[in-house]
Amino acid sequence: MASMPAFSDVRAAARRLRGRAQRTPIFTSRTLDARAGLQVYLKGENFQRTGSFKYRGAYNAISRLSDAEKARGVVTHSSGNHAQAVALVCRDLGIRAAVVMVSTASPMKRQAALAYGAAIHEYDPAAGDPYVITPALAAEHGWALIEPFNHPHTLAGQGTAALELLEDVPDLDLLLAPCGGGGLLSGSALAARGMSASCRVIGVEPETADDAARSFRTGTLHENVNPPTIADGISTARLGSLTFPLIRELVSDFAAVSEQAIMEAVRFLFHRLKIVVEPAGAVGVAALMSGQYAGAGKAGVILSGGNIDAEVMARILNGSL
Amino acid sequence: MASMPAFSDVRAAARRLRGRAQRTPIFTSRTLDARAGLQVYLKGENFQRTGSFKYRGAYNAISRLSDAEKARGVVTHSSGNHAQAVALVCRDLGIRAAVVMVSTASPMKRQAALAYGAAIHEYDPAAGDPYVITPALAAEHGWALIEPFNHPHTLAGQGTAALELLEDVPDLDLLLAPCGGGGLLSGSALAARGMSASCRVIGVEPETADDAARSFRTGTLHENVNPPTIADGISTARLGSLTFPLIRELVSDFAAVSEQAIMEAVRFLFHRLKIVVEPAGAVGVAALMSGQYAGAGKAGVILSGGNIDAEVMARILNGSL
Repeated sequence: MASMPAFSDVRAAARRLRGRAQRTPIFTSRTLDARAGLQVYLKGENFQRTGSFKYRGAYNAISRLSDAEKARGVVTHSSGNHAQAVALVCRDLGIRAAVVMVSTASPMKRQAALAYGAAIHEYDPAAGDPYVITPALAAEHGWALIEPFNHPHTLAGQGTAALELLEDVPDLDLLLAPCGGGGLLSGSALAARGMSASCRVIGVEPETADDAARSFRTGTLHENVNPPTIADGISTARLGSLTFPLIRELVSDFAAVSEQAIMEAVRFLFHRLKIVVEPAGAVGVAALMSGQYAGAGKAGVILSGGNIDAEVMARILNGSL
Repeated sequence: MASMPAFSDVRAAARRLRGRAQRTPIFTSRTLDARAGLQVYLKGENFQRTGSFKYRGAYNAISRLSDAEKARGVVTHSSGNHAQAVALVCRDLGIRAAVVMVSTASPMKRQAALAYGAAIHEYDPAAGDPYVITPALAAEHGWALIEPFNHPHTLAGQGTAALELLEDVPDLDLLLAPCGGGGLLSGSALAARGMSASCRVIGVEPETADDAARSFRTGTLHENVNPPTIADGISTARLGSLTFPLIRELVSDFAAVSEQAIMEAVRFLFHRLKIVVEPAGAVGVAALMSGQYAGAGKAGVILSGGNIDAEVMARILNGSL
């Protein structure tokens, strides 16, 4: 069992990532402020290397492996964005990468991981469990398992996006982060705890995939296996053994957003801010656009990624989903 | 007849625009550099106020009107982006705005001008000529005519995007700008002439709307009325009495890009850079992606705007145009 990460691990990750990860831009919009009823600061992780915040966690975890581990290679499982991130980090560091990926994953995300040189091990979601397949591959080949969220070095690295946002806008009252397995959210909460005495951290999920909110509120781990949501990047079944207690301790509340609200947020970011954000990355904006946080002061939002298949965006733009 | 603008007018416009226009970001992409065979710097005017460079020219021209002119109001004609820009500038300055717009204009651009409070005077492209309608309205109502490109203050303001790019990347070897009526191109060329002894300026047009290239090469004004191109923002029929001589004097060459190349550039900017660029704004990238400037050193490109209708982008993403 890995040890619980702390704010100091996020700080250390930020030092390690310097010159590797992009310091991503922060966007503002008067129209969004007016609609949400507060000042909004959007952290554009869609502009991160490989198009999502996952690069931060993957680099932090993989760069900390021993030389012997690096020589043997790494394995992970991911619906897409973490796969791309592990693949690019391994290519840059000259390490062999294998990715266990569900056969229904986004074709674009799968293709990107392949293009960066990773080997893909595909499984049928009705028949296989990545939590069985991946450790088995790791044991068989001696590969280091780089968990996509439930890993202290991964989630500490993922928290560096929020750290940068709080460095640039120190007086945030709220910080909203998408929640799938909880790596980004718990890393962000560690950063907020260390950077601000008063910033409240809100996890955001699709209404159809609200297992983390239920786990958070009840103290018992809930799950949503293969939930029906357009936000494939946060369709993870459940929180992990590290992320669940961190979220219980550090997060203030959860918000749930409808599929319609997610698509409206994607369209808003496209037309008004001229940026491409995938559905999972737009849930924080969707929550703010409901107006439920009006009057709360300054809100930071992690736009977690921008990897979206052309035909999914086409359907969202046409309003036909 | 208005006097010929000079580099000093672009400089003066930049001072006037400080705190009004956005200093837009510059994007780079290793993938694009590899594909184009040179270092590319993209000036993101899609992030400008109202979503295009047109704000710069409209603000510069309208803010220079006398108090008496401002009290009477302004009129312009535009397929869309200049209309939005004039409408917002007038709203901000408390001036009445009227826009003469073709009935086939992009619905989104029309809607945006309306939302900023402009009055729209629509005409049928088969029956009316904006170059007749607009001066008639100006004369009838005493409105100041803010030409979209053939106006010394408009085009000087439009040149400030290139000025900023050359301030940030002074050693550009090439500067590519889209060309419709030639305001952006001639303003950019004035900026380049003033900022660099060696930067070559290239105008870029759709193959189906190459009237400016033919005018440039022959010294005789050519025209393309309602050319069949997806790049509606640069489908202007001909250069103007100011922009034609400026372009003849200051531009080094023209490039023509196919409709397929324009759409591929829009898709590339969407998927790889996660930014929304309209077809007219992507022609410079389309020209570079052909590889025809490989080995030329450093190229700056004006991404002129990001205002694209949802259904047009959906069709481009689906590859069905």
